[in-house]
Amino acid sequence: MFWILFLIFLGACFAAGTTGAIFPPGPWYRDLDKPTWTPPDWAFPVVWTTLYIFLSIAGARLALSDGNGMAMALWALQIALNGLWTPVFFGLKRIRGGMLVLSLLWLSVAASVYVFWGVDWIAGLLFIPYLLWVSVAGALNLSVWRRNPDVAANPPVQSR
Amino acid sequence: MFWILFLIFLGACFAAGTTGAIFPPGPWYRDLDKPTWTPPDWAFPVVWTTLYIFLSIAGARLALSDGNGMAMALWALQIALNGLWTPVFFGLKRIRGGMLVLSLLWLSVAASVYVFWGVDWIAGLLFIPYLLWVSVAGALNLSVWRRNPDVAANPPVQSR
Repeated sequence: MFWILFLIFLGACFAAGTTGAIFPPGPWYRDLDKPTWTPPDWAFPVVWTTLYIFLSIAGARLALSDGNGMAMALWALQIALNGLWTPVFFGLKRIRGGMLVLSLLWLSVAASVYVFWGVDWIAGLLFIPYLLWVSVAGALNLSVWRRNPDVAANPPVQSR
Repeated sequence: MFWILFLIFLGACFAAGTTGAIFPPGPWYRDLDKPTWTPPDWAFPVVWTTLYIFLSIAGARLALSDGNGMAMALWALQIALNGLWTPVFFGLKRIRGGMLVLSLLWLSVAASVYVFWGVDWIAGLLFIPYLLWVSVAGALNLSVWRRNPDVAANPPVQSR
């Protein structure tokens, strides 16, 4: 049962992560002024794959725990927000919209750590690297916004 | 507690639905050859808003039920797939990729109806209109594919 649950949660993570694969960083992102501590492009899929495995283990553990209602609601919320950032930032090239999504994602992950801890502390622990990485991503999104105010204020028009 | 859970699940639905708002149907979609039974553009946000409320009620009911592990995993899976379709179909303009996502979404929603029924039959009932609508969306995606084979085979290149 644990592994079936793990695979379903991993499927949810994969669906969210697919948005990252279909809107990869291109010339627009490369040409933005970024801080020196920007992680290299290759780090993102590596880190996300690791985190998605952690998230799925946490999800499966929580699913099998009593009193998991709030925890499962937050798990669903964070994965929906997780899949939204890439279409906004890389798809629409909207730096400020990306910041809004990342802020909401950060709040949902922070709430998750807190709530999970009371249900299954291992699940809470598994979300801490996620919280740290979303913090880095948020700092990066904010720095890119500040360094590229004109791009942030005038996102390119999408072809429809 | 029910209403807090309801609002968190609704937040997850809203995040998934936002992809529909940021990649709205444009000239590309309008110019596709579509079947006569294609629902009008205005129907989509109306139907989705209604469905999202049903989904959130179902999610909150399930979250408060015992033995909800598989149900909560499937709820998370369907919302992640739900948010993926629009970026693929309207964002990337990939008709065949959209069909793949819709097929996976349909399977996850069908499994949800079945599993929810055993945990809380009202939650199962609330997912039946969703299953019907995803069936319509799948039929529409398939019909668009068949009527526009050249567009489906040669999706426009995205600017990066």
